[in-house]
Amino acid sequence: MKAVRVGLLGCGTVGGGVVKLMRRNAAMLAARLGARLELAAVADRSLKPDPSLGLYAELITRDAQALVTRPDIDVVVELFGGLEPAQSLILKALAAGKDVVTANKALLAERGDVIFKAAVKSGRFIGFEASVGGGIPIIRTLREALAADRQRAVYGIVNGTCNYILSTMAENGSEFADVLAAAQRSGLAEADPTLDVGGHDAAHKLALLVTLAFGVALRPSQVHTEGITRITLQDIAYAREFGFTVKLLAIAKHEDGAIEARVHPTMVPSRHLLASVNGAYNAIYIQGEALGSTMYFGLGAGEMPTATAVVADILEIARMRLAGATEASDHALGYPYSAIKPAKVKPMDRIACEYYLRFMAEDKPGVLGRIASVLGRHKISIASMIQQERAPQVPVVMRTHESQERDLRRALAEIHRRKIVKTEPVFIRIEERL
Amino acid sequence: MKAVRVGLLGCGTVGGGVVKLMRRNAAMLAARLGARLELAAVADRSLKPDPSLGLYAELITRDAQALVTRPDIDVVVELFGGLEPAQSLILKALAAGKDVVTANKALLAERGDVIFKAAVKSGRFIGFEASVGGGIPIIRTLREALAADRQRAVYGIVNGTCNYILSTMAENGSEFADVLAAAQRSGLAEADPTLDVGGHDAAHKLALLVTLAFGVALRPSQVHTEGITRITLQDIAYAREFGFTVKLLAIAKHEDGAIEARVHPTMVPSRHLLASVNGAYNAIYIQGEALGSTMYFGLGAGEMPTATAVVADILEIARMRLAGATEASDHALGYPYSAIKPAKVKPMDRIACEYYLRFMAEDKPGVLGRIASVLGRHKISIASMIQQERAPQVPVVMRTHESQERDLRRALAEIHRRKIVKTEPVFIRIEERL
Repeated sequence: MKAVRVGLLGCGTVGGGVVKLMRRNAAMLAARLGARLELAAVADRSLKPDPSLGLYAELITRDAQALVTRPDIDVVVELFGGLEPAQSLILKALAAGKDVVTANKALLAERGDVIFKAAVKSGRFIGFEASVGGGIPIIRTLREALAADRQRAVYGIVNGTCNYILSTMAENGSEFADVLAAAQRSGLAEADPTLDVGGHDAAHKLALLVTLAFGVALRPSQVHTEGITRITLQDIAYAREFGFTVKLLAIAKHEDGAIEARVHPTMVPSRHLLASVNGAYNAIYIQGEALGSTMYFGLGAGEMPTATAVVADILEIARMRLAGATEASDHALGYPYSAIKPAKVKPMDRIACEYYLRFMAEDKPGVLGRIASVLGRHKISIASMIQQERAPQVPVVMRTHESQERDLRRALAEIHRRKIVKTEPVFIRIEERL
Repeated sequence: MKAVRVGLLGCGTVGGGVVKLMRRNAAMLAARLGARLELAAVADRSLKPDPSLGLYAELITRDAQALVTRPDIDVVVELFGGLEPAQSLILKALAAGKDVVTANKALLAERGDVIFKAAVKSGRFIGFEASVGGGIPIIRTLREALAADRQRAVYGIVNGTCNYILSTMAENGSEFADVLAAAQRSGLAEADPTLDVGGHDAAHKLALLVTLAFGVALRPSQVHTEGITRITLQDIAYAREFGFTVKLLAIAKHEDGAIEARVHPTMVPSRHLLASVNGAYNAIYIQGEALGSTMYFGLGAGEMPTATAVVADILEIARMRLAGATEASDHALGYPYSAIKPAKVKPMDRIACEYYLRFMAEDKPGVLGRIASVLGRHKISIASMIQQERAPQVPVVMRTHESQERDLRRALAEIHRRKIVKTEPVFIRIEERL
């Protein structure tokens, strides 16, 4: 029986999962492929992978640079993460005729131009299913299954940490800081949670999804990014009264040739399927012109879920390799790389949606009137309001009709500047019609 | 620019959608493929396809037999449905070196052995994404994305008509017959609805899903199949009291080398994602050993949704064809065809689950005691009960702990035989732990 030999860069959580899965399912994988998948080498900086993996000492090397050009290795799996040395190692592997599988969303989002171009040039495959949505097959779905349709919009819950925090706040009635601290203690959030709770991880993933969904290139810096740190229990409770649930959504829309791309806390109708995606689960909801709405749900991170995506990529690449196919890398993004042009991005000022607004006002006659009058002057019309019982400082909570972001920001700035309210007004965008 | 030429068998609803989609998205499809997708011929029995499609008269033929061997056609798309002439036409097309795309779940489920073997022999591709779940990419997801994992269970809402009827009954409080009649008037249900409401369409789909998920062959006749015709508003209301929603589920489980495969009305926890899949939508919920739970949601039928799956298959096959690849048909089921053995099916008697039970009893002292005593003798233990107000005939409604199907059936038969209750006891299976 033939063998396809795999070199692993990184043997941490996901790498360990890959080793376990390849071993546990070796017979099944060989039956599917008609060839054995063999682990040829593992480069790990710590040189101390989990002893329970039972890796032979001979397999382990510190020399990643040598691994990626070894003639007995067919497929290089990059799980170091980060920009360097991951980028140089992948480029070196491609140049040496290796196919590459990676889960490195940051690298692909920031340096996709270099990586994908190199894959095309070398005629090798690059698999990156694990880079977005963990074990949810969203990359190949956009690239292949939805390839006959034009996508209109993508709404993703793509950061498990944020979704866990927001759903736990809603369920247990705990404030953000407490849930985050508990999540850090239990390993569900990083010690430095900025990448996750700041929305940056989701922005990286959205940049990749935009390319696959719309066939245009987008840098993470072009994604308007807001995190969940300012979300309070109070706003979650009011959202519920309006029939909404607060989620960190990665949103991309394609209209009139322009791309709207943004990551921010979003109120979605509580009856919508996305509102039922709780805990560390991820989901990507896609609207297509011909297909209508589809949704893909599952665990977006974790050792074994992510490993299934990595090994599925290895399997598919091994199958192509055994069939003698090359140059199909140019299909990695669903379009030939040369056909992918930079996205024309719609400025955030120009987007339109409904808004949830909360003002902390002194309970004096006329405050509501002054707020409403400023909003009205800026073409923001109020759809409904929640009346509060009287107290020295009362929240004035409302939901607007569809408004322009620019108008809204000007109105809120004016209300704040003129000291009509006590603290900076809170606003959360609503996606009503998804 | 090269061209890949498509011959269409059948130009009804889905065929019309394929023509529209290929025309509307011609430039995008050509950009993705680096070649034009051309419609070369359409065989339609009525010879009167929808005039709005604007098909040139020269494209239309009555002679399907001649179409499938025409040298200028690369890919044959079979949308006639049914066993014949679809089967002979597909076999003839494969023998003539054409790749084949079909949406024909009945044919693949009943005669997959013939069709897939012929595809392997001819070294051609066979695409059938549209056969299950319409536009939901469940076929390629099981075949490729989840290929590194072992599936444990598949739970599918795969018949849109049944899901529409059950969710409308629950939402509007209308009885089955009324909702069905309205669905027939609006075209959501067939004039003869037996295939749908009898569960047979779902059983065909489940047979295909079993092969893809577990790598074993299963005939639709091996699927225990019950329809939704006996579901009443009363049971839907009691289900809700117990915290359940009634869905027609296609269920397959793999345990200890045996397959459990059944289609029947099922109570699922109302908080579960599957319970929120309403109207004509479909969803397939899969539990994998390493990946855990994933779900795939979308429209399972209809002109344009199904057409997106057909054209995605054409696109993928065209890409392989242009790359000079052959014999990959042997990957159509995710395993080489020769590796797929007949499923060992667990008899229905041997399954175990919780049950919802409803008895119509005269309100006489001792009836409940007699019911409970028969159940107890057959090892059925009661988990909870709903007490009813007194009336001449009162429903006794209960939920059991996990029990063996054989024990349950014996107990109900005895209760009925001994005339402890007035009418045949009603039972609905519960899937609590999905």
